[in-house]
Amino acid sequence: MTAPHQMTLAEASGLIAARRLSPVELLADCAARIAAVEPQVNAFIRQTLPEAEAAAREAEAEIAKNGPRSALHGIPIGIKDIIDLAGHPTTCHSRLRLDHVATEDAAVVGLLRKAGAVFPGKLATHEFAIGGPAFDLPFPPARNPWNTAHHPGGSSSGSGAAVAARMLPAALGTDTGGSVRHPASHCGIVGLKATYGLVPREGVFPLAFSLDHVGPLTRTVRDAALMLNVMSGGREDYSRDLGLGLKGLRIGFVRHFHETDMPADAEMAAALEEGARLLAAEGAIVTDVTLPRLSEFAAVNRTVLYAESSAVHEEWLTTRPDEYANVTRRRLLPGLFLPAVDYMHAARRRTQLIAAIEAAFQDVDVLLTASSMDPACRIDDTEAVERTYPRQARTPFNVSGHPAITVMSGLSSGGLPLSLQFVTPAFTEALLLRVAHGFERAAPWKDRAPPLDG
Amino acid sequence: MTAPHQMTLAEASGLIAARRLSPVELLADCAARIAAVEPQVNAFIRQTLPEAEAAAREAEAEIAKNGPRSALHGIPIGIKDIIDLAGHPTTCHSRLRLDHVATEDAAVVGLLRKAGAVFPGKLATHEFAIGGPAFDLPFPPARNPWNTAHHPGGSSSGSGAAVAARMLPAALGTDTGGSVRHPASHCGIVGLKATYGLVPREGVFPLAFSLDHVGPLTRTVRDAALMLNVMSGGREDYSRDLGLGLKGLRIGFVRHFHETDMPADAEMAAALEEGARLLAAEGAIVTDVTLPRLSEFAAVNRTVLYAESSAVHEEWLTTRPDEYANVTRRRLLPGLFLPAVDYMHAARRRTQLIAAIEAAFQDVDVLLTASSMDPACRIDDTEAVERTYPRQARTPFNVSGHPAITVMSGLSSGGLPLSLQFVTPAFTEALLLRVAHGFERAAPWKDRAPPLDG
Repeated sequence: MTAPHQMTLAEASGLIAARRLSPVELLADCAARIAAVEPQVNAFIRQTLPEAEAAAREAEAEIAKNGPRSALHGIPIGIKDIIDLAGHPTTCHSRLRLDHVATEDAAVVGLLRKAGAVFPGKLATHEFAIGGPAFDLPFPPARNPWNTAHHPGGSSSGSGAAVAARMLPAALGTDTGGSVRHPASHCGIVGLKATYGLVPREGVFPLAFSLDHVGPLTRTVRDAALMLNVMSGGREDYSRDLGLGLKGLRIGFVRHFHETDMPADAEMAAALEEGARLLAAEGAIVTDVTLPRLSEFAAVNRTVLYAESSAVHEEWLTTRPDEYANVTRRRLLPGLFLPAVDYMHAARRRTQLIAAIEAAFQDVDVLLTASSMDPACRIDDTEAVERTYPRQARTPFNVSGHPAITVMSGLSSGGLPLSLQFVTPAFTEALLLRVAHGFERAAPWKDRAPPLDG
Repeated sequence: MTAPHQMTLAEASGLIAARRLSPVELLADCAARIAAVEPQVNAFIRQTLPEAEAAAREAEAEIAKNGPRSALHGIPIGIKDIIDLAGHPTTCHSRLRLDHVATEDAAVVGLLRKAGAVFPGKLATHEFAIGGPAFDLPFPPARNPWNTAHHPGGSSSGSGAAVAARMLPAALGTDTGGSVRHPASHCGIVGLKATYGLVPREGVFPLAFSLDHVGPLTRTVRDAALMLNVMSGGREDYSRDLGLGLKGLRIGFVRHFHETDMPADAEMAAALEEGARLLAAEGAIVTDVTLPRLSEFAAVNRTVLYAESSAVHEEWLTTRPDEYANVTRRRLLPGLFLPAVDYMHAARRRTQLIAAIEAAFQDVDVLLTASSMDPACRIDDTEAVERTYPRQARTPFNVSGHPAITVMSGLSSGGLPLSLQFVTPAFTEALLLRVAHGFERAAPWKDRAPPLDG
């Protein structure tokens, strides 16, 4: 048998249901993996293993007696440390929140707990989900398991790193400008941002309320579907169409995002072309689609994010500015000086951008776009981090609220993951997952693991 | 027979349906009244009588043949000049819009036209529905028919003045911070602001999109119901419960608005007490209710209005500032300097204020509050206009979107109308109109006309 920590969520879940794997064994194997590789990766802000072990024992007993409550029963899931886990601090990776203790689970954690998941720890983020990788904070930044000298993407850095490093089969992240899909792209895993509002956000520290989403990071598309089933409150089985294949689906390739709006790294661009070719070979009808330019989405995203985040941080920015990391303060502070009229113009432009995407969905079922324009840069190269951070095509779908998923699409010559993104109309997550799964079968990069010693 | 221009909309409508009054006669009599009193009142920006006469003749012929299309068939209705009437300028009472010509009817005008209404003219407003009464504009400000030395209220000044002066049975106004209910209160007529969104706003020049409402000004509550039936697209008969009376209705009297938050003129306060007494005498159960203080609603309204209006006016304020009236420029300009973070705080506080009103509706069916705290002041007393303009309890229901209606409740010793306001839960306009109608029957001030020579 594969070592349990190497299993996908679906594999472990299947064995648990068949009583061939105990949640206690699974967690113990993950804990051993954490002990072995965490010193290189820094994915965790806080490990909560004793509590998780107690929960795993309870799960083991309950499953032995009654069978599993859900596909997540006994599955260890990591939680980005801006999401409340009852009884533990939600530090937001910040000096300003060291004293915080959550009295209740966030709504999404409550759903996972009710489904039987266990929680081995709180995971690294960029400070308040907006600062970049920083070295002037009480916790180190997470690193990329494919090359620990490199950036894992953010802000759900620990979530991406922990799942890619096979410490945990799944983790929760949040995505305001791409922060689930960015680490997923850089770490070679799957990052899903469902339709705005589908996953509850109560108990998640806000960054920008009209852009914030909670999403799962997993190693496979099927695992993302199993997570979403629970995270959305059990209203649908989002895995139901995974097997339908791609034949006849109309896929609109938004080439101008990475060809002219923001020219991508050559290897990334080639992987996108190869992705489109594979989709066509599976029977999809791939055509070019034009959306507004990336810079327009980015401008709206930035303005809305400045305005909304400043309302959250105004008091600390004015009374305790020194306690933020430099990079966080630099990213938040301009928001205090933004005129309301600019926010109004952005809000108005936003409705037009959403309408443009809706119009594209008159002609195609799915959009195919780049996620990141570059593979991950070195984490200590501040200039490269700053330069590449905004080189992405994820924020358009925070602006619009459409569901979007990123999957691995290759490896750069430097041994770092390449990626692509699919997007579908609001509340068509079953279709989104079907397409991503079809691609994943045609290009099974999910089977490649980072060459991490442990 | 009463002179047609003296009839309420319902009376004229009934006679038209019975073929005892022709739309042509009705309009001709209104036109004679306009010719007689308009020189003192200045309600019109532009008269469109020839066009209205042609429409009245068509209505006459059609009704003779097929009967009326609706209760508004052949009824002359005035239109505030920020609302598009196809083929005519929508000046917004501003030098900046003198060259404008509307190519299409506003949606609400289209509904009225389809119902058979005729349109004798465009009515005075405060410039862009925000400036106060101004003497530095291409059109004079409208005056109060009860005393033409006095302010008629605004910004739907011409609508209030034309209906109170018996020039027209009904008019359209708009209400962003109380601008339908203010002239209705000062002119002794009925002003209705339905639930946010119920009446369409396409083709209405915006002031602040999240606060803007279109509403009717009429001489009776029944007339307001007949107007709303058409203006809301015919989804309900809002007059259906007018006859049900007040017995057993729970009315929450928000006394602190005019007693402590913003102490009202003694005659206005006494009229409110007398109103509460009459309601109880009709069988309503009147109790005190506490809402957040008026100043909190006003602060949110002001911030939202600054932000949203500045997005509309930014270009003209920066390129053609001299073309606004002084008072308009002074009211709009601060919006350009409002920080977005203040708008975000206001948006957040707004949801709490709405929740507080919703909570009150757990215990009562209807709210009773002041509308204006003072009778109308002199129009040439700039200091008094500025001081009394914000002394009102209307904006809370622009902030919250709840339906609200103002009705006359007495006459001051100076011979100027007193008023009160009812408010009900969202989309319960039939209840709102029932209560206002019950009050109107108990206190038939609607039968008092201004002592205007003509």
